[in-house]
Amino acid sequence: MSPEILFSKPTTPFPSEEYAKRIERLSKTVVRNKLDALFVLTDLNRLYLTGFAASNGILLLEPGEEPVFYTDFRYLEMARTQIGFARIAKLTDLKKTFGPLAKRRKWRKVGYEGSLACARVTGLKEAMPTVEEWVDAEKHIMDLRAVKSPREQAALRCAVHTGDIVFENLLEEIEPGMTEWEIRGLLRELTDAFSQGEAFDCIIAVGSNASKCHHHPSLRPLKPGQELLVDMGVRVEGYLSDMTRTVFYGKPSRKLAGIYKTVLEANRKAIRAIRAGKTCGEIDAVARKIIQKSGHARHFGHGLGHGVGIEIHEQPRLAAKNTTVLKPGMVLTVEPGIYIPGVGGVRIEDMIIVRPNGCEVLTTTPKELLVL
Amino acid sequence: MSPEILFSKPTTPFPSEEYAKRIERLSKTVVRNKLDALFVLTDLNRLYLTGFAASNGILLLEPGEEPVFYTDFRYLEMARTQIGFARIAKLTDLKKTFGPLAKRRKWRKVGYEGSLACARVTGLKEAMPTVEEWVDAEKHIMDLRAVKSPREQAALRCAVHTGDIVFENLLEEIEPGMTEWEIRGLLRELTDAFSQGEAFDCIIAVGSNASKCHHHPSLRPLKPGQELLVDMGVRVEGYLSDMTRTVFYGKPSRKLAGIYKTVLEANRKAIRAIRAGKTCGEIDAVARKIIQKSGHARHFGHGLGHGVGIEIHEQPRLAAKNTTVLKPGMVLTVEPGIYIPGVGGVRIEDMIIVRPNGCEVLTTTPKELLVL
Repeated sequence: MSPEILFSKPTTPFPSEEYAKRIERLSKTVVRNKLDALFVLTDLNRLYLTGFAASNGILLLEPGEEPVFYTDFRYLEMARTQIGFARIAKLTDLKKTFGPLAKRRKWRKVGYEGSLACARVTGLKEAMPTVEEWVDAEKHIMDLRAVKSPREQAALRCAVHTGDIVFENLLEEIEPGMTEWEIRGLLRELTDAFSQGEAFDCIIAVGSNASKCHHHPSLRPLKPGQELLVDMGVRVEGYLSDMTRTVFYGKPSRKLAGIYKTVLEANRKAIRAIRAGKTCGEIDAVARKIIQKSGHARHFGHGLGHGVGIEIHEQPRLAAKNTTVLKPGMVLTVEPGIYIPGVGGVRIEDMIIVRPNGCEVLTTTPKELLVL
Repeated sequence: MSPEILFSKPTTPFPSEEYAKRIERLSKTVVRNKLDALFVLTDLNRLYLTGFAASNGILLLEPGEEPVFYTDFRYLEMARTQIGFARIAKLTDLKKTFGPLAKRRKWRKVGYEGSLACARVTGLKEAMPTVEEWVDAEKHIMDLRAVKSPREQAALRCAVHTGDIVFENLLEEIEPGMTEWEIRGLLRELTDAFSQGEAFDCIIAVGSNASKCHHHPSLRPLKPGQELLVDMGVRVEGYLSDMTRTVFYGKPSRKLAGIYKTVLEANRKAIRAIRAGKTCGEIDAVARKIIQKSGHARHFGHGLGHGVGIEIHEQPRLAAKNTTVLKPGMVLTVEPGIYIPGVGGVRIEDMIIVRPNGCEVLTTTPKELLVL
């Protein structure tokens, strides 16, 4: 995701203590993993940990030291007024800034983010030749981001609610004869009106196009009698929603109606199975078994769901072999689907928050088979 | 840039021979740099070299061998019909696909893209343990991308022309009292109507906000008498435009009018100085000297311009110390600016194509001081 998207509408950062807490948690992981320092450079992780929306900056965590936020002259003033939980320092030359520091503090093992451009990691390594070992420590940040704080949960609840409203408005305005591209335009307009913009590029698929999971809106029109698959999301205060519905503009064929029933059952039973303590794989299996029984195992080619937060795909993934244990506060999509090439496809996707004894379903858009 | 943005409106790829030529040129660089193989994985470089818009795929170039495009099951069929200039192969496991190949062909020195996520480069390295040396070879792709083919120049000309039209329409609709955020909404709507969408998140700055080069649209209204800085771009057939204009809603102060005159002179003289054979630094110096003479050296804190193509910032950069020699077909922005904190700022940005004896100015929006 490009950082620009993040900045596309004024977002109010959370209060300072929210970020202080996040940094404190990450600092504990730094100690636990025996890192002498951790460098956070990517836009989204930096934003997550500081609430500071800049296109440049480095957060440095070091056991026993105050966190330091380095940024260039353009952002220094803004950072000083906005960030109360870290020391602010001017970022000039990597070598001059960090070379002597690494040497003086005798850093041996230092963490970086694996998603960072390789050339930038090379830059860090060259700036600190005295460091012996560089380790990809992004997993620790991702694990932190996977469990949403109460404030984050509230933001996500709001985003999903807004998505529901946008979809309701969309359905009222769609008419057979419109192309996928026109429906996309309509959806985008509604999304911009109600939210801070699209969470991701929507999927709009009519008729047999619905069998392609990654379909891009084309100039194909929605014909009477056809199905329409809409996979969409909105952004509210920097947090994202994600939802898929499949609706029918005329009575579906017996085959598609059967598939719909199966997918809906898979969606419902998987949601009912979710609770803290279960593994991601166990939840995926609940839905996959139902689809397998219906004979469509090979037509469900993706995982059951994924985490959502400030990015559309976060940890954990609800996938067959994932042994990650669900924790209260994780926010996930549940999106089983059956896709039959040349015929069509059905996906039904909701968002939920994991709770100790179950889950809170955020999406309120009805999911019973809808014939329009 | 996220790949979604690329795919947000149907784009017609160029004819096959365009990509065949690009790959052929890059292959020559591979030979010249004594690479045994070059892996291209990033979305934009892959798209540039193949015209194939997918979220996954690897282009492999090897001296003396046919180029191979690896992609997963989702895109295989599409790739087979669309790509005529490379062998198409199924991408499964990195280790299984490339491990034996690297060993059999005795690859010693292999190139990767430095902008690729470090974790992915690590994946490549682990898949091919017999490779002795991995080198960041992205520079060669970037050098190729810097010089635009006639087809690319036509696309860029069209994008800039569309941007001019959007800006003209925007000026007609702006009224004092509108907030930066509302002007941004208006601009976005016009951009969506006329083009494939925004090239980047626009900068809309009123009054003293114009002194911040990276200002994000706020809820501050444009007041009569104030200045308005608009930095905007559109996307047409995947190619981008970039333009900045500063206009005044009332007679500007003598100070701002003076600054405007200086910036305009810097813009014009720099454009007049551009021609193939000059270095980027020489062109930057032309503008910088004019601004220096006016006493505002410290208020022009960025480079004079940058390449534009399928990305908003491409090679080369018009910067003080850049010794890169301009070549015919390079497409650049020329955007001198003076920014005085608390007072305001002026930037005037055009796009040009480098020619053997000068340059073609693409932007046609007037740039004389405009009082509305």
